[in-house]
Amino acid sequence: MNLLEHLAQQRRLVDSELDRLVPTETTPPETIHRAMRYSLFAGGKRIRPILCIEAARAVSDVQDGVVPSACALELIHTYSLIHDDLPALDNDDYRRGKLTNHKVFGEAMAILAGDALLTLAFQVLAELPATGERKARLLAELATASGTVGGMIGGQVADLEGEGKPPDAQLLETIHRAKTGALLRASLRLGAICAGAAEEQYAALSRYGEHMGLAFQIVDDLLDVEESSEALGKTAGKDAAQQKITFPAVYGLEASRRMAQEECERAHQALALFGARAARLHELADYIVRRKS
Amino acid sequence: MNLLEHLAQQRRLVDSELDRLVPTETTPPETIHRAMRYSLFAGGKRIRPILCIEAARAVSDVQDGVVPSACALELIHTYSLIHDDLPALDNDDYRRGKLTNHKVFGEAMAILAGDALLTLAFQVLAELPATGERKARLLAELATASGTVGGMIGGQVADLEGEGKPPDAQLLETIHRAKTGALLRASLRLGAICAGAAEEQYAALSRYGEHMGLAFQIVDDLLDVEESSEALGKTAGKDAAQQKITFPAVYGLEASRRMAQEECERAHQALALFGARAARLHELADYIVRRKS
Repeated sequence: MNLLEHLAQQRRLVDSELDRLVPTETTPPETIHRAMRYSLFAGGKRIRPILCIEAARAVSDVQDGVVPSACALELIHTYSLIHDDLPALDNDDYRRGKLTNHKVFGEAMAILAGDALLTLAFQVLAELPATGERKARLLAELATASGTVGGMIGGQVADLEGEGKPPDAQLLETIHRAKTGALLRASLRLGAICAGAAEEQYAALSRYGEHMGLAFQIVDDLLDVEESSEALGKTAGKDAAQQKITFPAVYGLEASRRMAQEECERAHQALALFGARAARLHELADYIVRRKS
Repeated sequence: MNLLEHLAQQRRLVDSELDRLVPTETTPPETIHRAMRYSLFAGGKRIRPILCIEAARAVSDVQDGVVPSACALELIHTYSLIHDDLPALDNDDYRRGKLTNHKVFGEAMAILAGDALLTLAFQVLAELPATGERKARLLAELATASGTVGGMIGGQVADLEGEGKPPDAQLLETIHRAKTGALLRASLRLGAICAGAAEEQYAALSRYGEHMGLAFQIVDDLLDVEESSEALGKTAGKDAAQQKITFPAVYGLEASRRMAQEECERAHQALALFGARAARLHELADYIVRRKS
């Protein structure tokens, strides 16, 4: 099976598990479940869940609760998008080519739907079919990656506070290691934990995740400059308009492209000890750097 | 020691643990840690943590991680207050006699501070000094009580959607069992789990929590009608202004007072099997019904 077919199959696997985990649209109170599902099934690429599943496969064929763990990552990612799009934050009207959550359900419901997805992510991990020790490790990892100290919320705050500041390489790296990097690295780590990875396997997947995370963000910044809103499904050129600190702003387009490629190579190198078991992770690294949206 | 002295001592215990668990104001990014601490240390009564600690004491002198578990409840409670006060939700300017979080830090930071407190609550439980099995049980309980199906967020949604609807006894009970009842019951349950409660002890503390939760909410509704904003430290009379469904609106003041007393009696009865070990829980029930703010 080629990569695109494989990705489509994995997305179906993740979507069907998400559908099982999130209360139906007819479960009261209906509105919030409709709002949660609206953003969750708005056509996301499921990159984090797929990285999680592939990390587990690179380690072992025996895994506990990897698909629901993968879904917990997508629940966190989706909550963060809903809150980021709010008028008080990035004030975006479109996401993945559809109206943002608050444009459809109102601000109050969008805030609560984000809260609910965040809460559900932890509930899913707490109720996994796995040992208590393993669940506690997964939960601690996901919470840290989503939190304020080196995690996603911390990165979001640094990003907000960086708006309008002069482009600065150090600040740029701090922001992105936290804002997108921590959750991407956690995606690999959750998979590693579910498959009972040895310490060196866990460390190698973490390194892969760090380099992929940086490559992913550089490409994101480049796409914001180079692609149309239509191709992206969200407002293009917003970084410049909001005076965000981005890789193209600090290093220029050419050097940014080269950096993305270098991070991608380092990601490949980190996989050495897995041999052929990591074939899909190798393909995913190239796919993430070459994507157009 | 009389109850008020005992409560003051317990509050100090909880406050000092919260101070240890939440990143300091000088940990980057500083702003969000300042915002989190602003609302967390705004003079809350710490009712949920104290109920948790007393539930554990009623069961056993041997407990694992009960004080941090108690703090996780307060982190959830505080996040819910910050988000509830936002302009898109209840639009409140004052809470506990101080400006609300978004009035001091702005809406973006208030949203993120709420998200961060919610995330930290689960991190604290995941990192408790307790067995993995126990941590997973605590996490599942807290997530369910905070979630959309019969939990706090679900109650908040039902409450928002109930505004302006005719007063209805059934809807009123559904809202409050979820909005405040679920987290109060979870407070008792977390304490029970930390102390290794037997099934009948867990069930008895759950019943106590349910009756206390209802009594607590009835008193809250009564205070909103009867007390001044100054005494409450928040805007009084808001329920009527927002056409909320409340106990006084459905049953009238006199019957509501009687109901609070009845729920309090049932809470006392639920404690029978603990004998003298539950002395403080008995006192707390009376205290919660007689409070003036």
